[in-house]
Amino acid sequence: MATINDNYLKLKAGYLFPEIARRVGAFAQANPDASIIKLGIGDVTEPLPPAIIEAMHKAVDDMAARPTFHGYGPEQGYGWLREKIADFDYKPRGCNISADEIFISDGSKCDTGNILDILGPNNTIAVCDPVYPVYVDTNVMAGNTGEADDAGKYDGLVYLPMTAENDFNPPLPDRKVDLIYLCYPNNPTGAVASKETLAKWVEYATANDALILFDAAYEAYITEADVPHSIYEIEGADKVAIEFRSFSKNAGFTGIRCALTVVPKGVTGTDRNGERVDLHRLWNRRQSTKFNGVSYIVQRGAEAAYTPDGKKQIQALVDFYLANALIVRQTLESLGMKNYGGVNAPYIWLHTPDGLSSWDFFDKLLTEAHIVGTPGSGFGAAGEGYFRISAFNSRENIQEAMERIKTRLNT
Amino acid sequence: MATINDNYLKLKAGYLFPEIARRVGAFAQANPDASIIKLGIGDVTEPLPPAIIEAMHKAVDDMAARPTFHGYGPEQGYGWLREKIADFDYKPRGCNISADEIFISDGSKCDTGNILDILGPNNTIAVCDPVYPVYVDTNVMAGNTGEADDAGKYDGLVYLPMTAENDFNPPLPDRKVDLIYLCYPNNPTGAVASKETLAKWVEYATANDALILFDAAYEAYITEADVPHSIYEIEGADKVAIEFRSFSKNAGFTGIRCALTVVPKGVTGTDRNGERVDLHRLWNRRQSTKFNGVSYIVQRGAEAAYTPDGKKQIQALVDFYLANALIVRQTLESLGMKNYGGVNAPYIWLHTPDGLSSWDFFDKLLTEAHIVGTPGSGFGAAGEGYFRISAFNSRENIQEAMERIKTRLNT
Repeated sequence: MATINDNYLKLKAGYLFPEIARRVGAFAQANPDASIIKLGIGDVTEPLPPAIIEAMHKAVDDMAARPTFHGYGPEQGYGWLREKIADFDYKPRGCNISADEIFISDGSKCDTGNILDILGPNNTIAVCDPVYPVYVDTNVMAGNTGEADDAGKYDGLVYLPMTAENDFNPPLPDRKVDLIYLCYPNNPTGAVASKETLAKWVEYATANDALILFDAAYEAYITEADVPHSIYEIEGADKVAIEFRSFSKNAGFTGIRCALTVVPKGVTGTDRNGERVDLHRLWNRRQSTKFNGVSYIVQRGAEAAYTPDGKKQIQALVDFYLANALIVRQTLESLGMKNYGGVNAPYIWLHTPDGLSSWDFFDKLLTEAHIVGTPGSGFGAAGEGYFRISAFNSRENIQEAMERIKTRLNT
Repeated sequence: MATINDNYLKLKAGYLFPEIARRVGAFAQANPDASIIKLGIGDVTEPLPPAIIEAMHKAVDDMAARPTFHGYGPEQGYGWLREKIADFDYKPRGCNISADEIFISDGSKCDTGNILDILGPNNTIAVCDPVYPVYVDTNVMAGNTGEADDAGKYDGLVYLPMTAENDFNPPLPDRKVDLIYLCYPNNPTGAVASKETLAKWVEYATANDALILFDAAYEAYITEADVPHSIYEIEGADKVAIEFRSFSKNAGFTGIRCALTVVPKGVTGTDRNGERVDLHRLWNRRQSTKFNGVSYIVQRGAEAAYTPDGKKQIQALVDFYLANALIVRQTLESLGMKNYGGVNAPYIWLHTPDGLSSWDFFDKLLTEAHIVGTPGSGFGAAGEGYFRISAFNSRENIQEAMERIKTRLNT
């Protein structure tokens, strides 16, 4: 009798974004003439930069001729891409990360879930609240939690509140934890961590022999000069942290699929005999066995992100979305709606007006203004009463959406 | 203290192909003038079919303009691709598989490993011996085995010998098992299963409430009319089997990355309370949470495999490699070297001459003829004394390799 992984049955309802898609689908079906503007899921809308298009055309042509054809690539990614990342993303910021510590993958969502494959079953795990749901759900699936309570909090996880009350600066855990998920610039709140804040976490991890899983998927949106882009800008982080990055939100790769995970050779875990084991070796074994590398065409596209033209074009894309974010912030402020983020991140995190619940405000915004956002409570109990608006859209749609928020919401 | 997954420490040495790469690298470094012909890893060498190249160029252009740009796609794959697969691969063979039972992924290697995510920890698992190492290694990683013995057999797995003695037709397990991995056309032996053989397995699975994991990555190589291409050609299989397919070996996608997994809605597992749970729902949840879909460009390329031109061009590719296989078989036969496979599969499975061990013959072939193959023992204890030659190469290289085998091997 084939048994299932019972942990899956602990998962609450659907994953957040499918649930949003379900509600939007139902509304659209009932209101076929409504012009819905989607500021929910953080999905890019603008075309890929020309330098990347050109590189991918060339890569397609490479596959059309025997001398330039590429079969299986290295599971870890091509050396030419890993080296560019080391040279352009890490070296200039003083991070001591070498190319062979960088693993190319098809997505940070996959990697932040898959990393649990190499970790043990008895770790105490801390997540921020609100939090990117994948961190939590993949731990539920892996059996690292108990059941959820009515607010959606899973027994066994340590939730670190990240709210306006603490300036979105979550406290150190009140007990010893072994794994800590951090995401900066933060999804969903748009908050960033200063060097001092990150240093506090690295110090905690070092003192407690904990591992930090650092998600830097939005680092390209940092505009303030003193905000660190990588946790490896902090001394000692290369002994206690794994970092995830993505081409999704800077180069517009959500539909192209390319990301990277940095596992420095100095990062270790402990086996059941108390011996130190190099996590780089384990991750390499995992990827070699359960992954077959990223499409050659995609990796050539990612490589073009590091050409002079590619860099300029990507910066223009990021600037474009940040200008959208400014329009959203200004609109909300003009209406007296308190909000955060949007300066070093493509997300604006706002207090729902009139004490509405997050999902009630979701429904209100959808039915009255035909705008889709993301309910804060979908990111965790401490997100209740908040709402996320994504700046990923055309200028026209952002302007139209803000006009509707100004004029169509019944108050 | 962050603990690791101790199961990784049970894994024997490297994954087979990295170990081969290591030995070949060492030889090449010591013999820089040697012209090495690689017939080891089953990697395609010929350019992609023109219909696919054209479709991918068009898809790249789609990403360059706002109206045709694609962000996140469905985690399960685009409907237009899933429907083509149902219509062209399954319906014509009488298989009752609908588009929404087909999940597009970036590789069968990934899927055959990831499928264990949704299954329980206490299943008894049967694999053929020899076997594609990923089935075994991913079960070791998941904690479904004990330690390995000296021959590389893991405690807790049920090995079903698949050798010349039983005509490569493995016996039913001598005890009750819950999961059965089958691969037809078989990697590495090149054997196929008749309808009667598959029906025997479906009957076993039905009677024992077992789940069959059926790997059909090489189905395009079947030339004999009465050999089933899908396990769903067998009545009742849609209640007990999950099937894996890939575009790697037919369309030449090893470097492009696209595959599919079929989870029929009637396939169930059992939870700890003995309740039936739909595996389709669990796999959908897994893919939604831990995967973000396959690159739009890649899926458009895969779709072109189903156009009239695409189908013809793919058939020509398959015929090309099968003609290589014929040359290999004829050469080995002319030398009196007993071999199997190569008729409905791109692999030729031969007895090593003179009672050499598989790795000794590997080293002999490499050092004397500068040819790389795959040692049978790398696929399992029962593969000892066998050797796999892949037909994936240019005609010129196949002919040159066969000439060297005729003239350079010291006997």
